[in-house]
Amino acid sequence: MGSISENCLGWAARDTSGVLSPYNFIRRDTGPDDVSLIITHCGICYADVAWAKNIPRNTIYPVVPGHEIVGIVKEVGSNVCRFKVGDHVGVGPYVNSCKTCEHCKIREEVHCDAETTHTFNSVDEDGTITRGGYSSYIVVQEGYVFKIPDNYPLVSAAPLLCAGITVYAPMMRHKMNKPGKSLGVVGLGGLGHLAVKFGKAFGLHVTVFSTSNSKKDEALNLLGADKFIISSDMQQMESLARSLDFIIDTASGDHPFDPYMVLLKPSGVLVLVGFPSEVKFSPMSLLMGSRGISGSVAGGTKDMQEMLDFCASNNIHPEVEVIPIHYINEALERMENRDVKYRFVIDIANSLK
Amino acid sequence: MGSISENCLGWAARDTSGVLSPYNFIRRDTGPDDVSLIITHCGICYADVAWAKNIPRNTIYPVVPGHEIVGIVKEVGSNVCRFKVGDHVGVGPYVNSCKTCEHCKIREEVHCDAETTHTFNSVDEDGTITRGGYSSYIVVQEGYVFKIPDNYPLVSAAPLLCAGITVYAPMMRHKMNKPGKSLGVVGLGGLGHLAVKFGKAFGLHVTVFSTSNSKKDEALNLLGADKFIISSDMQQMESLARSLDFIIDTASGDHPFDPYMVLLKPSGVLVLVGFPSEVKFSPMSLLMGSRGISGSVAGGTKDMQEMLDFCASNNIHPEVEVIPIHYINEALERMENRDVKYRFVIDIANSLK
Repeated sequence: MGSISENCLGWAARDTSGVLSPYNFIRRDTGPDDVSLIITHCGICYADVAWAKNIPRNTIYPVVPGHEIVGIVKEVGSNVCRFKVGDHVGVGPYVNSCKTCEHCKIREEVHCDAETTHTFNSVDEDGTITRGGYSSYIVVQEGYVFKIPDNYPLVSAAPLLCAGITVYAPMMRHKMNKPGKSLGVVGLGGLGHLAVKFGKAFGLHVTVFSTSNSKKDEALNLLGADKFIISSDMQQMESLARSLDFIIDTASGDHPFDPYMVLLKPSGVLVLVGFPSEVKFSPMSLLMGSRGISGSVAGGTKDMQEMLDFCASNNIHPEVEVIPIHYINEALERMENRDVKYRFVIDIANSLK
Repeated sequence: MGSISENCLGWAARDTSGVLSPYNFIRRDTGPDDVSLIITHCGICYADVAWAKNIPRNTIYPVVPGHEIVGIVKEVGSNVCRFKVGDHVGVGPYVNSCKTCEHCKIREEVHCDAETTHTFNSVDEDGTITRGGYSSYIVVQEGYVFKIPDNYPLVSAAPLLCAGITVYAPMMRHKMNKPGKSLGVVGLGGLGHLAVKFGKAFGLHVTVFSTSNSKKDEALNLLGADKFIISSDMQQMESLARSLDFIIDTASGDHPFDPYMVLLKPSGVLVLVGFPSEVKFSPMSLLMGSRGISGSVAGGTKDMQEMLDFCASNNIHPEVEVIPIHYINEALERMENRDVKYRFVIDIANSLK
């Protein structure tokens, strides 16, 4: 391709303090199968905080976080046919996989037998460490790049690349797209608020469960939920016994599962997408009514493109607080304190210079 | 019908010792919708021990246990069209339900919104307490009576009415009847040994997990399992990571779930049919690979008849130890100690006099 190695500017954490600061590094040239994109926006996922602080204990410093990446194509490799310069595109939590296992073959790469290459903090094919979207540009194989539909705002697309797919994929896997069915959403953060929006777009009756009343008005009037329940109100909780077809549990704090399990109808399923420290419940909550609990993380590339198109077709836009890159350390701290409605998006194009 | 109230002879527990002894009681006349059957055999389920000893804390003494009932029709009501005198029939864990809720309508009565009437220790329509199959005869509404296929031994049919349906129903619900898929079976008692037999009949590759080597030979050579694993052998366990499509967990003792969950392929499901005191695992075991855990108890009347027909068509016979009613107290004690291969069946016809 003859492209020249560029100096890429990013923001990186250098140690377990997790404090980010500017960091210059080299990205690989645009290979024949690669798409290179100028990053305009990057959403902030809880994973960014986790790896910045080495909570998973495998962080390779300096680490450049960010896997809710959107931008504009600036160069494509000779084999690339789906994208051209100027296209609006996105990149999610992984940038490579084995491509040959049974999961990759059906575009469920998130389950790749050889594990996916994560968008940051993974060892790439060439032995370098992948660096994420808190940076000016990125080079990614075509198969892991997604088309942002025309006229869909890039700023809105960013949170869809991780938060969006994380709730959309299990909703499709468990066939939640059936008008008239009922959905409970536990926790109303980045994932939860999108679960409400997707649920309403699918024609579901959506009940939000929250620990405090503070989000009630927005849940009902901004997000369009049908019902809002304070989860500590046992009387209200019990009145919903055996009433829900599905629950999406986005809460990452430790919480009891039995009070939610018993709200499911027979054969109902609770999908966990949060990361509490453990899952514990009475077998009776599972056995009676043949209920189920399933987990999910991210999703495959097929679901990802479908979800982006679905959001554009149905006018689904995440609620975001747009910040400049210089605000990143405050934003990560607020993210940890769950003080965000409902997702931070970094305005890379206008602030990373 | 003009039938005369008969003196029914049963064996009942009178107190929390759970010791059973002969007990005479009156059953209702055969009503227009009823089938009356002379009981020839009754299987022994762990539930019999539990209620005999009031472990669920709702036993109404005297209690006559038994809900794996088979026998021969001796009288039918005027509205009964599916059965005639002399037919071989069975009765399972419940004898009535509301018949009008969404679950009853699709013959998933086990999930009845109004709760099923259990075969023993429930309040019947007429206000009397239901009494189970440790007795000479029983009167049951036609809809809760099943046809035992011609030439299928009554003694073999008994354990199918609870143990059989408890594993068959979730196997069908989770679409395990697909040749070439792989099934793990945890625990090799009444339920587990039938899960192995059903699995092989479905064409599955079946791996048995057991805490001791004592059942290895029978698992492989009598029941036909393909592989036998000692669950404490971490090396063997780890070698099976991500290899199973399904697991049926029949273990009622407390046991860890994570070591089994990680053996599931992505999107694999573990079905719990045992009753440990709690279910606890790491969210990672669930989230990574989008795995699921589901519960199940018994099954609906549609599945029940289908399962009986399936066993007859496929020559599936539970392994049983036939005992006279006078041995019942020793048998219940052995049942509690899991000292049975693999299900006790009481020879009511030849010993209850």
